[in-house]
Amino acid sequence: MKAFIITIGDELLIGQVVDTNSGWMAQALAPLGISVVGKMTVGDQTEEIRSGLDWAAQKADLVLITGGLGPTKDDLTVAVLADYFETELVFSETAFAKMKAKLSQYQVEVSESHRQQSFLPQSAQLLDNALGTAPGIWFEKAGKIFISIPGVPREMKVIMTEEVLPRLLAQAGEKHILYKTFLVAGIPESELSERLETIEADIPDFLTLAYLPKLGTIRLRLGGVHEDPGILAQAVDTMAEKLKVELQGLIAAESDIPFAQAIGQLLEQQGASLASAESCTGGNIAHLITLNSGSSAYFKGSVVAYANEVKERVLGVRHETLTQFGAVSRETAVEMANGVRTKLETTYGIATTGIAGPTGGTPEKPVGTIWIAVASKDKTVAKKLQLGKNRLVNIEFSSVLALNLLRKVFLVPKEV
Amino acid sequence: MKAFIITIGDELLIGQVVDTNSGWMAQALAPLGISVVGKMTVGDQTEEIRSGLDWAAQKADLVLITGGLGPTKDDLTVAVLADYFETELVFSETAFAKMKAKLSQYQVEVSESHRQQSFLPQSAQLLDNALGTAPGIWFEKAGKIFISIPGVPREMKVIMTEEVLPRLLAQAGEKHILYKTFLVAGIPESELSERLETIEADIPDFLTLAYLPKLGTIRLRLGGVHEDPGILAQAVDTMAEKLKVELQGLIAAESDIPFAQAIGQLLEQQGASLASAESCTGGNIAHLITLNSGSSAYFKGSVVAYANEVKERVLGVRHETLTQFGAVSRETAVEMANGVRTKLETTYGIATTGIAGPTGGTPEKPVGTIWIAVASKDKTVAKKLQLGKNRLVNIEFSSVLALNLLRKVFLVPKEV
Repeated sequence: MKAFIITIGDELLIGQVVDTNSGWMAQALAPLGISVVGKMTVGDQTEEIRSGLDWAAQKADLVLITGGLGPTKDDLTVAVLADYFETELVFSETAFAKMKAKLSQYQVEVSESHRQQSFLPQSAQLLDNALGTAPGIWFEKAGKIFISIPGVPREMKVIMTEEVLPRLLAQAGEKHILYKTFLVAGIPESELSERLETIEADIPDFLTLAYLPKLGTIRLRLGGVHEDPGILAQAVDTMAEKLKVELQGLIAAESDIPFAQAIGQLLEQQGASLASAESCTGGNIAHLITLNSGSSAYFKGSVVAYANEVKERVLGVRHETLTQFGAVSRETAVEMANGVRTKLETTYGIATTGIAGPTGGTPEKPVGTIWIAVASKDKTVAKKLQLGKNRLVNIEFSSVLALNLLRKVFLVPKEV
Repeated sequence: MKAFIITIGDELLIGQVVDTNSGWMAQALAPLGISVVGKMTVGDQTEEIRSGLDWAAQKADLVLITGGLGPTKDDLTVAVLADYFETELVFSETAFAKMKAKLSQYQVEVSESHRQQSFLPQSAQLLDNALGTAPGIWFEKAGKIFISIPGVPREMKVIMTEEVLPRLLAQAGEKHILYKTFLVAGIPESELSERLETIEADIPDFLTLAYLPKLGTIRLRLGGVHEDPGILAQAVDTMAEKLKVELQGLIAAESDIPFAQAIGQLLEQQGASLASAESCTGGNIAHLITLNSGSSAYFKGSVVAYANEVKERVLGVRHETLTQFGAVSRETAVEMANGVRTKLETTYGIATTGIAGPTGGTPEKPVGTIWIAVASKDKTVAKKLQLGKNRLVNIEFSSVLALNLLRKVFLVPKEV
């Protein structure tokens, strides 16, 4: 089955808002065997929306439309759709009752523009929106499906997950869907794909294996669709086991979570705690960890030691270490990791010090030279990285590599 | 003039990469009076690219194409374009020489796939790519312009800035372009637009004023196009002066830079230094500041005091303060700001402590309750925020609001 995505809104065309919805939708549809063959953004204009619908219907069997379902006057998607599908807008008591209930929950008064949102196309099915006031709308015409969903990402996601995907599955004739994601760290994509070549050659037709790489980590998503849920579950389990054996030591989590959260889970399993001492990453490691709710259970804090005097005064790095080896050295990284672990009384300390760039390099220590270190009470390991010249990439990449060093040295469960 | 943007690449369709190029292009074209009327993403398939070109040519006078110019076998844009514009691919000695020079600079060996990149459409003009090996390509056909540019964002930006925009301007008949951006902080967009209503009513036809909002800040971009550079410069100056008077105290920078960099510039102008003490923002303030190259000139570091014991032990927050008022209180925020300032010996200290959520709230201190504080040797100011339930938004928004509190209290130049 082929899908085409239309996103509606002047704010997308002028570059005020970046469209992240369509990528999310494509990833959600993939395990059902539905591939997105194209996407288009049109402004808030009747003719543009209509011609976009014509185009999409030529290219695909399923057309997903997001945006333009809110209460403002610019949002004319519903009216255009009703006209396009030659149906009337009628007042839906059911939709209005649901909306009123939702608004009272948020203590918002019902306005005339809210009431207007309850005029909906007669021939369409309505899709429940658990998080907002505008329902999704499902049309069928000439064997093709057109689904219109609000553009607010969290509303789009809940309608897709709770309404659209189950219906698409049901349409596919009682098929079942299952997927399992592994978060893989410490291996480049090309090497991973070589390593999995034999396993991939044996993969059943109804399963797919997708690589979703992100600076330093790769999400490996195994997805399948089958009529028989038992066969499907067994096939996914078998493949998952093969992957786990092949990728021993490289899997940070068996679910689709951020890498820093995976590290947090491993720390929690050990009942261990962590603190970071950051120079070149400038607080990014602490930021990545504390983005995850519940991180206070294992993360005590960080000392961002940007100035050398802070490395000395707060972290207890020795003055001689800094003068003899420099701030960007194995010795400094090691003392930072141990210093923050001692100071904040944690199980582990993690440290970074380097030249993030784009300037500040020397012939011996060019931009991108970064030392990372991890320490426990009994053991300290340090590693030198040689990255590129892009400051943002250096900060993000070295943060992930430092967390992965912690994982490899201290958090991978002992092999039996 | 109307523009249409085509982005090419399977990675965009499957949701592996989010397209940020088209938004940047739209913003770059706007001051030239060129509006983007639509955009489309197609996969790496000849027929899809061809039909996309047909569609775009129907909708606009200028078609911008990004992606698909790299050396891999998937990238067939050049061949499709040559075929579409009925011209031959010929080996360009000039392009190959430039490429070889660039590769040797990066110490990369010239491969056969690099050589293949120098087969370019005969009837096209080549656009210099200062950062990469694949040049941009400019076609004209039936009064319409088609421009193909690599999809790597930094290469796209340099070709647009150095090659495309100047040529488009020249085509417009020796018109001149000028723009000036103000970074405005501490006022909601709706209020800003009301406040500027009178000024906007008086704006000359050849100037535009665009609002580009981002959590806590708004970039206000004044742009103009005119035949006479003198008239243009004077009009922009006059408008800029009016804006500066009206928005006194709200302008963080008179250029298009990140907010944390603007704060850094103000600190540098004072010869002042800063340290942060972060609980709920978890290192994000330090991260935002240290993303900017040169931040070591004014930023000494941060103590991310996630655990209360770190607030006490490292920042010197009194135990009684924590037990009597709690970690989320004016008193704790004030002691954190002063503690980090004293400990790291900086001119200013900035602190955050609050409940980022989504859980952890109480009836008295619901999720989103956040105290921010700023301190100098002589003065300390604290402020309570009541934000929403989204953890990420709370972290990012309170970081910006804390930096803006620092700006308002200590960094706005004294009015004459």
